[in-house]
Amino acid sequence: MADKWRQLVSDKRQRQQECIPKEWLVALPSDDLLDVRAYPDTCGLLTEREVAITNTCNVDVLLNKLASAEWSAVEVTTAFYKRAIVAHQLVNCLTEIFIERALARAAELDEYLNRTGKVVGPLHGLPVSLKDQISIKGLEVTMGYASWIGKYSDRDAVMTQILYACGAIPFVMTNVPQALMWPETYNLIFGRTSNPANRTLTCGGSSGGEGALISMRGSPLGIGSDLGGSVRYPSAFNGLYGLRPSYGRLPYSGCVNSLEGQDSSPSSLGPISGSLSGIKTFMRAVIAQEPWLLDPLCIRKKWDEDAYKLAEHGGGEKLCFAIVWDDGDVVPNPPVLRALEMTKVALEAAGHTVIDWKALKHQELYECLASMWMAGAVSDIAATTAETSEPRLTSMSPEGSAPIETGVEYTPDISAYELWQLHKKRTSLREEYLAHWRATAASTGTGRPVDAIIAPVAPFPPPPHGLTKISAYTVVWSALNYVCCVLPVTSVNPEVDAKRSPHAFLSVRDQENYELYEPERFKNAPIGLQVIGGPLEEEAVIAMTEVVDAALKTLSAFPV
Amino acid sequence: MADKWRQLVSDKRQRQQECIPKEWLVALPSDDLLDVRAYPDTCGLLTEREVAITNTCNVDVLLNKLASAEWSAVEVTTAFYKRAIVAHQLVNCLTEIFIERALARAAELDEYLNRTGKVVGPLHGLPVSLKDQISIKGLEVTMGYASWIGKYSDRDAVMTQILYACGAIPFVMTNVPQALMWPETYNLIFGRTSNPANRTLTCGGSSGGEGALISMRGSPLGIGSDLGGSVRYPSAFNGLYGLRPSYGRLPYSGCVNSLEGQDSSPSSLGPISGSLSGIKTFMRAVIAQEPWLLDPLCIRKKWDEDAYKLAEHGGGEKLCFAIVWDDGDVVPNPPVLRALEMTKVALEAAGHTVIDWKALKHQELYECLASMWMAGAVSDIAATTAETSEPRLTSMSPEGSAPIETGVEYTPDISAYELWQLHKKRTSLREEYLAHWRATAASTGTGRPVDAIIAPVAPFPPPPHGLTKISAYTVVWSALNYVCCVLPVTSVNPEVDAKRSPHAFLSVRDQENYELYEPERFKNAPIGLQVIGGPLEEEAVIAMTEVVDAALKTLSAFPV
Repeated sequence: MADKWRQLVSDKRQRQQECIPKEWLVALPSDDLLDVRAYPDTCGLLTEREVAITNTCNVDVLLNKLASAEWSAVEVTTAFYKRAIVAHQLVNCLTEIFIERALARAAELDEYLNRTGKVVGPLHGLPVSLKDQISIKGLEVTMGYASWIGKYSDRDAVMTQILYACGAIPFVMTNVPQALMWPETYNLIFGRTSNPANRTLTCGGSSGGEGALISMRGSPLGIGSDLGGSVRYPSAFNGLYGLRPSYGRLPYSGCVNSLEGQDSSPSSLGPISGSLSGIKTFMRAVIAQEPWLLDPLCIRKKWDEDAYKLAEHGGGEKLCFAIVWDDGDVVPNPPVLRALEMTKVALEAAGHTVIDWKALKHQELYECLASMWMAGAVSDIAATTAETSEPRLTSMSPEGSAPIETGVEYTPDISAYELWQLHKKRTSLREEYLAHWRATAASTGTGRPVDAIIAPVAPFPPPPHGLTKISAYTVVWSALNYVCCVLPVTSVNPEVDAKRSPHAFLSVRDQENYELYEPERFKNAPIGLQVIGGPLEEEAVIAMTEVVDAALKTLSAFPV
Repeated sequence: MADKWRQLVSDKRQRQQECIPKEWLVALPSDDLLDVRAYPDTCGLLTEREVAITNTCNVDVLLNKLASAEWSAVEVTTAFYKRAIVAHQLVNCLTEIFIERALARAAELDEYLNRTGKVVGPLHGLPVSLKDQISIKGLEVTMGYASWIGKYSDRDAVMTQILYACGAIPFVMTNVPQALMWPETYNLIFGRTSNPANRTLTCGGSSGGEGALISMRGSPLGIGSDLGGSVRYPSAFNGLYGLRPSYGRLPYSGCVNSLEGQDSSPSSLGPISGSLSGIKTFMRAVIAQEPWLLDPLCIRKKWDEDAYKLAEHGGGEKLCFAIVWDDGDVVPNPPVLRALEMTKVALEAAGHTVIDWKALKHQELYECLASMWMAGAVSDIAATTAETSEPRLTSMSPEGSAPIETGVEYTPDISAYELWQLHKKRTSLREEYLAHWRATAASTGTGRPVDAIIAPVAPFPPPPHGLTKISAYTVVWSALNYVCCVLPVTSVNPEVDAKRSPHAFLSVRDQENYELYEPERFKNAPIGLQVIGGPLEEEAVIAMTEVVDAALKTLSAFPV
């Protein structure tokens, strides 16, 4: 029985392989080809039209072509499915593959559009990938647990229901680390997902399969979840846009989850896409479905078009952003600092103000939240792994090498009363942070407090497999329940991003982060930043991310 | 040191007494006068004009007279203050008394209005009473703990700040039970608050001082808090309107609280008033101040005027209400059933539909939530009482009689992981309840699910002191985080509300409740009901309570 999980894994892997049509298997490049993002364009499986479809990053453009029937849902779904399968062969990003089902849905949508001249909903015909956590009726959802192999969902998650109602086509599920509690993507069932920009690097986690797949243009939009950075790492590490909404803004009901019942700081579902229009259109579409009528924990709050027009931020004319150059604990590596500098220059060139953000007690916030997760984590994970005696992973490092403890530190369970004390502390830190933010009104020049904070997603580019440590740079905003939107800024260029000479280290973590960075090792690695607003400010944060994105694109077209 | 708390109490009582002007002490009626509500009208302390001011229950009328300077803020505050002090002498409802401070604020408001012709805010000149939990800078806030005597607040709670910003005048603080965890009002500092309609009965709790004070018309509007019924009991037991909003709709930051850090199901601040206009105007005014800019846990959600116009409920033309006749565990006493019957008749006469609500797993929801409160309650209360060795109350029964355990049952602390399992269960029950509600669309005849649920606040009228048991009738909606608005319906009339012959009891609790009821014992006791909507439906629930209230008033004017 001790090997029960191995048998399950072996069976599951075979079943997965059988879901891939033989004719979609492609000749693989040598492992030396590190950046495989363009490989699908030329691998011979996709037609020229399919290459054009899948390279249409802008989700609004894709939706327009679908709505006008210029491209049918069946051909769009086929194109992305073929590319997803190629991506999977290159970076191992998929879990559930269900081609027939997705194409049948696409055919229904085409039939409806042809018959009525109308779209089924605002996401008509859009293939959407789902993190292996968002249940689809009749499919397995293992969340990286061998113990969950063979557990088929008896219903669609509310998010899945809403996607169907919007006319979207859930078409693949994507890889995650065991129990989701890692910023990389590796588990005992499906193995490791790599970064398409440099396969020696991690794609991030826990929504890592999404990040890798969308980076490969194998999906125009995917849904991940973010407890402490799980949408943000994969977005930033793969040059994508990604949103961590406040919890309860999107419906979570019906998904499986890790540390279930950990309600101190719940995770949020959030979209990841190659385009910011994807993020906005998705959020608007899902909220328009009134998800609170289906999920009792979802917040009854309509999409606020005034907020999106930045009514509370001076109409967006002259914004004041504040940059987190470091969090007082770890100084970001050179390419991350360069991304911040580029952003500052771009925003100033666009007429906005940029000031420095003083990080307030980030390490305390981090420790407080990590302690809440760990309040019962060991018992939670043990309860699941015990079902088949599968080992609890203690490292994300590649097999064969020495295990390195790189994730959250697991500590023994605490009492409910001790957890209450953590809640008190967290509430008090949140109050302090809000006052700190409000006090910036004195230094913005706009009469308002800082409109949005701009911060690194991580103080490092996507590291080599097994070396990613979860950092306060993402967790602190989870602790505050702030809205974070990631945007791509640049990528590591060893010629520009030389290692600097050591500084006076702020902490042991700072020194480790300094030592981790070697320019050649991170070549090509995407660097993203996050734009951060207050709780439930999704509309304004998306709009301000558009401002930052436009400024950066202008800068890159006409460097100052 | 064992008697430290007694010394503190003795000192505090004396200081309280000294806050009352000697000339405001009135001749007291005999204890045999059970219904003392009209006593202030004739006690001689209030002028005719002050009697007229304080009998102006409708808060909007009061605000109009204040805004037009027909009545000055000083005279309104003086009138309510005098009446509050008379009320206090009759039913012992106050804790903090600070006449000078309130009158100084009133004078400022008058000066501003005279000078500018404008009101300071939407609650200009309105005296507002605060439960002894809502901090006012420089005043003590003891929350029924002798151990907290002498702790002066170093800042205003966010609610207090907002009241000032709205032009309101916080003018008294009101009594609570020790640690708030009781549906009656008694503590070792200030003693017991009685029901003005029948002083042998409880005023309810934990916002019992508010209920008694407003019933006496010693305050036009007060703010309580509701974890499991603490706004609703005092509202219903005193013939008042009261709202339990979803948590986070109103700002809680800066208040002291019991079981602090118990974030599984936080309590909500909520208004209590003699008029429904008070509830609506208060909610609209506070939310317009954007409290989420001051309290990080407050939900960023504007007042929704469309929701108040019942846009999602067919414009309010023909609503379908569902009545909870019993919760499957306890059958309400005859006057409560009569209130439900009156409401049904009134609503049908007004053209609405009324169907029966099938209570789904109310006892399970109750037990789940009570277990969450108890997860660390013993440690929490012990930590506070230990400061002065004050006893933890184990009963609300009058001194001298045998203690009766009438509150929540205290159970030992549990682990955080066990608490997570309760959260899972509660989430699952919430999902089930939402589906249950949605399924009613098949039986309403409106095409919509039931618009609002109407339920007893308690299956009993306000009981004699010491005999109130917290019941699932309030707690279940807290567990679901539904919005509840209490309205007064009738009062116990022994000639009509005869004891019925025993039914087949649904539970031990049902039998106890049956045995508790004796018509003469509850004479005059007010009976209120609650109108219940989904989470964050404050606007619609207030509007539907207006519908119910109007129907009942029409019925009483023109009985069908």
